[in-house]
Amino acid sequence: MASGEIDPANEFPNGEMRILGLIGDPVSQVRAPAPMTQRLRHAGLNAALVPLHVPAVVLPIAFGCLKLIRNLDGLVITVPHKIPMAELVDHCSERARLVGAINVARREADSSWSGDILDGVGFVRGLKQRGFNPEGQSAFVIGAGGAGCAVAAELAMAGAVVRIFDVSPDRASALVKRLSRADYPVTAADTPDPRGSRLVVNATPLGMRPDDALPLDPALLSPEMLVADVVMKPRVTSFLEQARARGCEIQLGEAVMLYQLDAQIEFFRENLVVGASAAR
Amino acid sequence: MASGEIDPANEFPNGEMRILGLIGDPVSQVRAPAPMTQRLRHAGLNAALVPLHVPAVVLPIAFGCLKLIRNLDGLVITVPHKIPMAELVDHCSERARLVGAINVARREADSSWSGDILDGVGFVRGLKQRGFNPEGQSAFVIGAGGAGCAVAAELAMAGAVVRIFDVSPDRASALVKRLSRADYPVTAADTPDPRGSRLVVNATPLGMRPDDALPLDPALLSPEMLVADVVMKPRVTSFLEQARARGCEIQLGEAVMLYQLDAQIEFFRENLVVGASAAR
Repeated sequence: MASGEIDPANEFPNGEMRILGLIGDPVSQVRAPAPMTQRLRHAGLNAALVPLHVPAVVLPIAFGCLKLIRNLDGLVITVPHKIPMAELVDHCSERARLVGAINVARREADSSWSGDILDGVGFVRGLKQRGFNPEGQSAFVIGAGGAGCAVAAELAMAGAVVRIFDVSPDRASALVKRLSRADYPVTAADTPDPRGSRLVVNATPLGMRPDDALPLDPALLSPEMLVADVVMKPRVTSFLEQARARGCEIQLGEAVMLYQLDAQIEFFRENLVVGASAAR
Repeated sequence: MASGEIDPANEFPNGEMRILGLIGDPVSQVRAPAPMTQRLRHAGLNAALVPLHVPAVVLPIAFGCLKLIRNLDGLVITVPHKIPMAELVDHCSERARLVGAINVARREADSSWSGDILDGVGFVRGLKQRGFNPEGQSAFVIGAGGAGCAVAAELAMAGAVVRIFDVSPDRASALVKRLSRADYPVTAADTPDPRGSRLVVNATPLGMRPDDALPLDPALLSPEMLVADVVMKPRVTSFLEQARARGCEIQLGEAVMLYQLDAQIEFFRENLVVGASAAR
């Protein structure tokens, strides 16, 4: 090839690029790299979000080594690393301590690493974007796993009154205890009955597989409810289809990812700039 | 942002992408990531070359960690890691053993890592592309460092008769000894005098800085000589300008990189395909 065949307008990736790693196990299902990389570049940052398949069993040593890579300024974290990574970074935000997990981490100017969880932030930004302000509203969250914790904590921080149901009552009460200790008005529900709530959220993985049960009986939904899901694949779950058929407004699972991209860029912006100038 | 704003035609990077890392210290000067990533994608491989700044002092542990990342199928290696990486991989090609360095490494099906050096291959492909076949030709190589070793070994393997000059006679004779042991017709030159050669190569870093001395006295160049450089920045070095002024055909330093991209894709193709299918 002659050198003229290189298109200088398309010099991406390039040597001065800053790297954000997206770590998960597996990682093939993630959808954030392309839209996040586009946003970073539109924001004037020479950076990319690169998927890195880090097996769960080697996470501590892999994170220790990723910290050695000088142009890697931060990480986006997905399943199953969100909870263990909260233990591996040096500092967690108040929100991350409440949730007990992180999904973003960055290298600070003093080389320490800080973590935050922005899944709930994305979820609540999605609600507000459609004109639903959670403040003072009653919310019913099904599932007290990672996603449920993030969504419930952010709703509580946004002023909602939250009820939480999980098939494991211990898991629900552990989350309720953590949020109550921080003085948020949160209670556990004994049954998956959302009646009386303005917002209903499926934060379980139910709906990912075609033969999954519904997270709750759709006959209990009514048109004044906003019904949201955190499942991203399929885009519209059976649960959301049932809700829509009953006249409910719905929010797709992808909102959690899409509406948190800007929050992630805010989280990373400063350290990407510091990293780039330190490299000069 | 509404989900409609994502352009599905531009889903790059994505979660199923295979990663090749380009490791160096520093790494900001590298030019291969964009053209290599374009070539990979044109070859139908969902892969990208991602620059990773690995400080020299942590190379062994960083390589140990990079091996843990399951979607990272290979590495391109630049200064100062080419020589130490030859010790860190499990197997080296005959060419790499001759040169004592590698610039590409890949994970094999049995999880071992193999290395090869393609800098000389790129250099010689560039020559052949312009109709210069080194077989039986006399070549004068200035510099017996990493680039000089790679170029001299590949010229010897292509059938050239090679003379090597280095300001450090020990360095030149070490290379001559290694190549002679493999029965290649190589000798050391006492002075940087290329007269009588059909091909003259600057394989030193001289020319990168504006106040660098020339690698040899340009009065010794004559129009029947093809004069090549390995310095990539500036694209046309003072040495090449002098050669051109004396009527010589010239080959730019970037040829080493550009003409080896296809050789790199041949080196990586199979293991990228194996990696992608193992991930399913």
